[in-house]
Amino acid sequence: MGALYNEVADRLQAQVQDGVFRDGDRLPGVRALSRQFGVSVSTILHAHQTLEARGYVQARERSGYFARLPLRDAPEPVMQTDRSRPVPVNAREMTVELCADEQKRMVPLSGAIPHADFLPFRQIQQSALWAARRGIETLEYAFPGKEPLRRQIAQRMATIGVPITPEDVLVTNGAQEAIILGLRAVTQPGDIVAVESPSFPGILQALEVVGLRALEIPTHTAEGLSLEGLELALEQWPVKACVVVCNHSNPMGARMSDERKQQLVSMLAVAGVPLIEDDIYGDLYHSGERPKPARAFDHTGNVIYCSSVSKTISPGLRVGWMLPGRYMANARQHKYFSNLATSSIPQMAVAHFLEQGGYDRYLRFARQNYRQATERMRTAVARSFPEGTAISRPQGGFVLWVQLPPGVSGTLVYQLARVENINVAPGLMFSISNKFESCLRINCGNPWSDRIDHAVVRLGALAHEVQARSI
Amino acid sequence: MGALYNEVADRLQAQVQDGVFRDGDRLPGVRALSRQFGVSVSTILHAHQTLEARGYVQARERSGYFARLPLRDAPEPVMQTDRSRPVPVNAREMTVELCADEQKRMVPLSGAIPHADFLPFRQIQQSALWAARRGIETLEYAFPGKEPLRRQIAQRMATIGVPITPEDVLVTNGAQEAIILGLRAVTQPGDIVAVESPSFPGILQALEVVGLRALEIPTHTAEGLSLEGLELALEQWPVKACVVVCNHSNPMGARMSDERKQQLVSMLAVAGVPLIEDDIYGDLYHSGERPKPARAFDHTGNVIYCSSVSKTISPGLRVGWMLPGRYMANARQHKYFSNLATSSIPQMAVAHFLEQGGYDRYLRFARQNYRQATERMRTAVARSFPEGTAISRPQGGFVLWVQLPPGVSGTLVYQLARVENINVAPGLMFSISNKFESCLRINCGNPWSDRIDHAVVRLGALAHEVQARSI
Repeated sequence: MGALYNEVADRLQAQVQDGVFRDGDRLPGVRALSRQFGVSVSTILHAHQTLEARGYVQARERSGYFARLPLRDAPEPVMQTDRSRPVPVNAREMTVELCADEQKRMVPLSGAIPHADFLPFRQIQQSALWAARRGIETLEYAFPGKEPLRRQIAQRMATIGVPITPEDVLVTNGAQEAIILGLRAVTQPGDIVAVESPSFPGILQALEVVGLRALEIPTHTAEGLSLEGLELALEQWPVKACVVVCNHSNPMGARMSDERKQQLVSMLAVAGVPLIEDDIYGDLYHSGERPKPARAFDHTGNVIYCSSVSKTISPGLRVGWMLPGRYMANARQHKYFSNLATSSIPQMAVAHFLEQGGYDRYLRFARQNYRQATERMRTAVARSFPEGTAISRPQGGFVLWVQLPPGVSGTLVYQLARVENINVAPGLMFSISNKFESCLRINCGNPWSDRIDHAVVRLGALAHEVQARSI
Repeated sequence: MGALYNEVADRLQAQVQDGVFRDGDRLPGVRALSRQFGVSVSTILHAHQTLEARGYVQARERSGYFARLPLRDAPEPVMQTDRSRPVPVNAREMTVELCADEQKRMVPLSGAIPHADFLPFRQIQQSALWAARRGIETLEYAFPGKEPLRRQIAQRMATIGVPITPEDVLVTNGAQEAIILGLRAVTQPGDIVAVESPSFPGILQALEVVGLRALEIPTHTAEGLSLEGLELALEQWPVKACVVVCNHSNPMGARMSDERKQQLVSMLAVAGVPLIEDDIYGDLYHSGERPKPARAFDHTGNVIYCSSVSKTISPGLRVGWMLPGRYMANARQHKYFSNLATSSIPQMAVAHFLEQGGYDRYLRFARQNYRQATERMRTAVARSFPEGTAISRPQGGFVLWVQLPPGVSGTLVYQLARVENINVAPGLMFSISNKFESCLRINCGNPWSDRIDHAVVRLGALAHEVQARSI
């Protein structure tokens, strides 16, 4: 079945590429095509969706489908390899600004936050109701975490190459807190911590909370953290920890190969530097198998694994966890000192959700949504943005990393877009050394809509405008 | 009605004091007393309860009520006024040990944690179910807090002399997190912070998390923080913040008078030192009116008010809040950086609980329970512990501060009790300078039972044993 709509899509695409339909031409109606290809209407609709994602077809409300010729295929951003120095992390008001109440009416192309339509709301609700019906156990401090949840996590970890027991799990308020507890467990204020560059702003903020200095390591859009860059950094600086998103890093969507993960783990073990692994996007791979975490290659307890349900089930539950490895005692104590425990009912709800077995079924749906939404956004950006714009090819997750042509300010595009109620993340947020001034991160975690389509067209126009001004 | 059972209790007490009934004598049956006094059986039962709390009657299962002569009335602990120096706070494994899983089967006289029987479980459950049924809003990051909860908090604060708007409220994971965010908002690592002595261990842990030095200020068992001590400290040291529990401090149960609160607020405002007020026990006053928080006397935004529902509604929900005053921008940012937001469903549940109006009704019940439980524990401790033991007279909350006779080690009593599965909090936990080696804190947040009764008798016997060894 999958082959059939793909076949139809390929033939239609060929017609567009060969000029049978020119850019902007209206395609024959769905019924007509159904007759023409001798397939069902739903196969035609499926083929249209595929072509939309590829950029060869545009749907216009109440008007039908129109041919589109993708102007060109955008290249991927080039890795920035200039040497870094450790820098104390300073608050970036911008991030809070991006998340403030008043921004909620804006077009949400900024935060890496999944849209409610992509989340399994009804099942979460059922699980939350189940949890709320539990006995007085919901009244208790659930430190270091509800046993049923820790058991579910242990079971899932075993399926991705990390055989652990429930006692190895510490439940947290999301992965952000897990990363902070991991940093606290292995560093002292003022210490140097190696991070990816560009880096997820939450990781930079975690470093700031603990009072650490960040050392930025070049990161490749496809292969992830540069091991050569890390090796140099370890030789040159007294690095005390290293924070890495090995699977579908944010903002680039890169995935390290198993071989590189293995090298990373052993390089850090030899150097005696703990690895803090953030794997929140691990389950959201776009194709193939669930990639292993770096923790699967750790035999010394040196990897502190962090994850959460915020990108998969629900950000609002605030349930995350960590496997602190041999740093458990410290991490436990810091969790207790910080806020005693994570709320009981949300923990029980997640345990129930995982136990019910609906998670894998839902993940198949989520992965397909995110892959399609990301491909569609990539096509839309390639079409609207100035020539010379480079775009990442994420292998998972739902964000795009866009590098504007040299000299074009992403910050300026961000500021102009805000005036038009379009919220996008400026590249500056992803570094502490002003490295990504010409970049933007675009959230693809939304169902496609005219509103999003128009917003991307406007972003492209603003980028052209900024380019024109800067020449 | 209240007068009637009190009258009966007074007359029975007089009979015990006058030797009509001697220590250990069985009292007449409930029906007999009902006839004798010409009152209902339930009035007699109520009178017995009152006398039990006062220490003049002991109920023995299936045997009836027995007269008891309180041996003496224990004095209150004397304020320790020796001058302190700022000390960096170091992890106290003890606290985590006290809260670990494996301790759950012990007699819980350690943590200041309310027993489930004293919590409004059914109403919380109804509110949690209501919250779980909400729409997709439960999926969202609830930063800086769900509006309905912030509105309820604003309404309640207005009734205790603090007129604020919902925008003044920042929701946190319990008061512990609120205190940490307050400290982060106004200090830098290494700074000196003035705290009560003895101090709630959570406050010392908060200082440790932020990397601060604690300066202990003598605190009176009845009047609270010594203003003279604080004044001296402010002259002598560059204090950057001051953390105080003005209402029913933990462990002493002290309450500052309105006049002293006012002096505290103005002294700190003049000195330019922010006051972080922890008011979690404010609603649990034993008699009279709800005491005002220090925040009610603040007109400059210099008081950072912190509270939660952990001592009143449910510890397991992990819902707290703060009014950061003029430090809102900083506190907000630190909250966002630490864990983005507090879980949505628990926030909605608390909002619903408060909105339903059941909170005040429940509080009347809780206050009576805690007062009785505390009085009863006080009597039991006075009866069992060595002569020369001093006991606090808390004006709210549900912990007792017990000072053993000079030279008797509370730590040793704590350790011996643990072997017998009795968990009590050693005085050392409440200071960073080994000031309260001869003290214990006893949790009274449990319904009275034979198990508790026996545990207190054993604690007393262990204290005698330790005293005998130390002579």
